[in-house]
Amino acid sequence: MKKKVAIGIDVGGTNTAFGIFDREGNSLSEGSIQTKEFDEVEVFLAALVEKISLALQRLNGTVEVEGVGVGAPMGNIINGTIENAVNLPWSGVIPLVELLSKYYDSPVIVTNDANAAAVGEMIYGGAKGMKNFIVITLGTGLGSGIVADGKLLIGAAGMAGEIGHTMIRPGASNRECACGRRGCLETYVSVTGIKRTFFKILADSIADSELRDVTFNELTGKMIYQAAKKGDVIAKQAFDHTGEMLGFKLADVVASFNPEAIFLFGGLSLAKEFIFEPTKKALEDNLMEHYKGKVSLLPSKINSQKAAIVGASALVWNHKENGS
Amino acid sequence: MKKKVAIGIDVGGTNTAFGIFDREGNSLSEGSIQTKEFDEVEVFLAALVEKISLALQRLNGTVEVEGVGVGAPMGNIINGTIENAVNLPWSGVIPLVELLSKYYDSPVIVTNDANAAAVGEMIYGGAKGMKNFIVITLGTGLGSGIVADGKLLIGAAGMAGEIGHTMIRPGASNRECACGRRGCLETYVSVTGIKRTFFKILADSIADSELRDVTFNELTGKMIYQAAKKGDVIAKQAFDHTGEMLGFKLADVVASFNPEAIFLFGGLSLAKEFIFEPTKKALEDNLMEHYKGKVSLLPSKINSQKAAIVGASALVWNHKENGS
Repeated sequence: MKKKVAIGIDVGGTNTAFGIFDREGNSLSEGSIQTKEFDEVEVFLAALVEKISLALQRLNGTVEVEGVGVGAPMGNIINGTIENAVNLPWSGVIPLVELLSKYYDSPVIVTNDANAAAVGEMIYGGAKGMKNFIVITLGTGLGSGIVADGKLLIGAAGMAGEIGHTMIRPGASNRECACGRRGCLETYVSVTGIKRTFFKILADSIADSELRDVTFNELTGKMIYQAAKKGDVIAKQAFDHTGEMLGFKLADVVASFNPEAIFLFGGLSLAKEFIFEPTKKALEDNLMEHYKGKVSLLPSKINSQKAAIVGASALVWNHKENGS
Repeated sequence: MKKKVAIGIDVGGTNTAFGIFDREGNSLSEGSIQTKEFDEVEVFLAALVEKISLALQRLNGTVEVEGVGVGAPMGNIINGTIENAVNLPWSGVIPLVELLSKYYDSPVIVTNDANAAAVGEMIYGGAKGMKNFIVITLGTGLGSGIVADGKLLIGAAGMAGEIGHTMIRPGASNRECACGRRGCLETYVSVTGIKRTFFKILADSIADSELRDVTFNELTGKMIYQAAKKGDVIAKQAFDHTGEMLGFKLADVVASFNPEAIFLFGGLSLAKEFIFEPTKKALEDNLMEHYKGKVSLLPSKINSQKAAIVGASALVWNHKENGS
């Protein structure tokens, strides 16, 4: 009997990666092409599909493709489209599912990266068997994927789960957001957010820090983490403040969705206790009595470099098994 | 053929009302008993069921009961219980579904008032045919019922939808909440909330107001509304501020759930444009670009005095038709 596999594709601005995974999330084959070399999405897809076909051929007919899952910026699961993604070479609305379905008989599903991460957590990771949980991705921005009653929460237009663009306080806050507004959660809680916090604390403080010799553009989340591990006071304060803001808004998330667990994924979450401890404290401090101690804050179990393609492939099994 | 009906029960601290409704929400019979006269819940239920049986008998066997829906403070739809409701005479966890099921062959469903209002809106009201919407109840507190992908959002422990206890800003806010914390949305947006806002503005202002002769305990939401209609500047400012806070937090709700509509129900919502206009403005001002103009803020269409029992009866049709 042939092994059933799912193809996972992660469309990025520079690179597009793919992988062929079995139901347990084991990778059978992987590859990538340069997104930015293709002006036309149809040509890009033809090249990508060809590369995937060669990978399948190398598996000598031992596998049966159950479907294709795609994670993409601004991927819309309802419409099967990528809609006005600023980081991709193709403008406007791209009917990705329609275009890819010409090549495959099995289902093609597209959604955004955070939703793919949530489905990946449910199918292969720490949320196996959970019906109500949330995945927060802490990269350049803050994304979120929400599973309620065992299904990905989509919303009326496929735009649910923009927790990164909920707001910290009423009135114009100081921090401009890439979305054009001010005071969104992701201006505080993301790799970019902690850089901003770090620079503000550094400006207010007279404490020494080896990062006083680093420019804003050079500064990375990892550098702040390394400094915090070495005892840098400013770096630790930056993590504390970031966790306070995240915990504060996660308390709203708990009151809204009543999840059993919240997973932190990627980027900042890799700073372990430096981000988890202040976040957990602020979350518990801000929870209503009957939620206290009842929601787990956990690191994602999909922690490999392959997370994006793993999550994308999980969309296929989720579609097959949960119908969403 | 017998007419199919649903029994709707609204358990309140003083009074418990019931009604027998057809699928269109028409009332065939109604009644009530005094909740507070019963020390024991079993005796209370026996008396209530007897009263309902008499009402059914008076319909001369022309109806067939499809189920019983109950709206109650702290009603938990997963457990079928009322859990530690402070306003009811019975303490602890009451296994309401278990107790009522002894009397009925058809399904018994219990949930809280705001969830019942949301299901009522979906079955009989303005949300017919909608799959993603939210009902905000603006009474003494602020409740919310959330429908996502056509189903009531329940959460891991039946405690989703506590939008009234999401918070306005980080750090201790001035306003104490009945839940024991500070700064919850319902301390600003509810009948009690607008009274607090009114008193604070009145204290800061030197403007005349006929309500300067009214005590806090005497003051009602209706009095503030009547004053606003007569041009009372302080009353109008109180509505504006209430709408600003509500619109600000509804923008978070839209980013989280991506609903197509938000309904305002009861209490403050009866102040029409005085609450709708500032709320709509603040909502649109705070929405991310791709949500702007895409979510309707609407008055509930279940506006009668019977709203609570109508909503409770709707739980029966929802259970039958949507399986939740």
